[in-house]
Amino acid sequence: MKLVRYGEKGAEKPGLIDKSGQLRDLSAHVKELTGEAYSPESLKKLAAIDPASLPAVSGKPRFGAPVTGISKFVAIGLNYSDHAKETGAAIPTEPIIFMKANTSLSGPNDVVEKPRGSTKLDWEVEIAAIIGTRAKYISEADALNYVAGYCVCNDVSERAFQTERLGQWTKGKSHDTFGPVGPWLATKDEIKDVQNLSMWLDVNGQRRQTGSTKTMIFSMAKCISYVSQFMTLLPGDIITTGTPPGVGLGMKPPTFLNVGDVVTLGIEGLGEQRQEIVAA
Amino acid sequence: MKLVRYGEKGAEKPGLIDKSGQLRDLSAHVKELTGEAYSPESLKKLAAIDPASLPAVSGKPRFGAPVTGISKFVAIGLNYSDHAKETGAAIPTEPIIFMKANTSLSGPNDVVEKPRGSTKLDWEVEIAAIIGTRAKYISEADALNYVAGYCVCNDVSERAFQTERLGQWTKGKSHDTFGPVGPWLATKDEIKDVQNLSMWLDVNGQRRQTGSTKTMIFSMAKCISYVSQFMTLLPGDIITTGTPPGVGLGMKPPTFLNVGDVVTLGIEGLGEQRQEIVAA
Repeated sequence: MKLVRYGEKGAEKPGLIDKSGQLRDLSAHVKELTGEAYSPESLKKLAAIDPASLPAVSGKPRFGAPVTGISKFVAIGLNYSDHAKETGAAIPTEPIIFMKANTSLSGPNDVVEKPRGSTKLDWEVEIAAIIGTRAKYISEADALNYVAGYCVCNDVSERAFQTERLGQWTKGKSHDTFGPVGPWLATKDEIKDVQNLSMWLDVNGQRRQTGSTKTMIFSMAKCISYVSQFMTLLPGDIITTGTPPGVGLGMKPPTFLNVGDVVTLGIEGLGEQRQEIVAA
Repeated sequence: MKLVRYGEKGAEKPGLIDKSGQLRDLSAHVKELTGEAYSPESLKKLAAIDPASLPAVSGKPRFGAPVTGISKFVAIGLNYSDHAKETGAAIPTEPIIFMKANTSLSGPNDVVEKPRGSTKLDWEVEIAAIIGTRAKYISEADALNYVAGYCVCNDVSERAFQTERLGQWTKGKSHDTFGPVGPWLATKDEIKDVQNLSMWLDVNGQRRQTGSTKTMIFSMAKCISYVSQFMTLLPGDIITTGTPPGVGLGMKPPTFLNVGDVVTLGIEGLGEQRQEIVAA
């Protein structure tokens, strides 16, 4: 299934995109796509519904992030070997974990705010897993059993805040709108091999990132298992797993986003996003 | 007011501790002490209730953290000059921000888990502010107007996970039970001067930390204003503001917590906590 939240900000309804690409209203079957809606039991119920029986939604409504009410928005840093190289960082020997503020979560096509004083606003196409089952100290072999599905995520970053303002990366990763997720959550069964998906990102129509989940240093399963050694993952939690080469910080000279720029990005099977940059 | 959540884990009820120290049941007036219950409007309503009209609660029930359903658990690092010195770190020129997983939030007297593989489990008595009003880009002069009240927080830390496992501090700050908060939230009006509160922490009855909020490098108001430049604070959000000297890492030789140890801590006007260390 491709599950979405559609409608105005704060008033999103649950929906499903059927095989023909038609958006359908799921609100008679589930109240809201919180973590609980992504439990195996809930997904089983939703999968049993004949999509043709759901009301078609006309027009082109806004999409919100396909999950809400999350407990955590976890991110893995420097998880593609070529990206680590372009930033001048050593290849990590174990996953780097940081957290994005939950308030950074936003819709896939919502504007992205350039914070006040920002000089190094950057992009990062990433694949994110959404947890479906509470996970603590889970093994790598078992980790994907705890996943409800996958989404596109733009791990928007302010590099000066991230690394030049003393201390922890969270400063440059947490501004409102720095976490566009969606448009849809593809349930796990839709994705044949999560380690073989192509991904791309354009700025103003120019290709900046081209990659594949093939080149992740630590696999999706490894990342989830690893995070679960340090904190308990709850249904709905988002784990975004790092970006391939081609970020602004790695360009020669480094090139960053300005108000009016448009970022588009996508991952095979997970849809596309589009964000315009506006002033905060 | 001193507001609490009491009862078994996951089934806490809202309560109030009256001037005589009697716990009283608030559940006829507020369903749950989420961020919304800490808005100025809600606090005004609760303050208008005559405590004597509330049912007295008998016995000694467990306390949960006095706020639930939070969006963020933000922490300030190295915010007491003497503590920065004892850890060998330079005095920060601006606040260091990191995040604790929301799932680390726990009751003031709940057990603290020693994670698997932990060798450097440490303590940090801290004063935490709970936000009452949405805050983004707020000034230092205005910052305390956005605060609902204050609590004791033990910013439990695993130093090896924090600094020897590559990357960001969040790894050592996020395990389940690493965020005991409470026993009560003292509304702002209860605390005459938030920058003049004594604080202490004992391990197995031996004094380890003695301090005062006087010696914070960045004041409570500065910390809150500063965090609001990087992320939007929502009602209920917790900002814990750093610890005075006396952590295990700073002892000669460094001394850490083991299973069976008991940590007690308190802050003037904000009550006391007690945690026993158990294996995860």
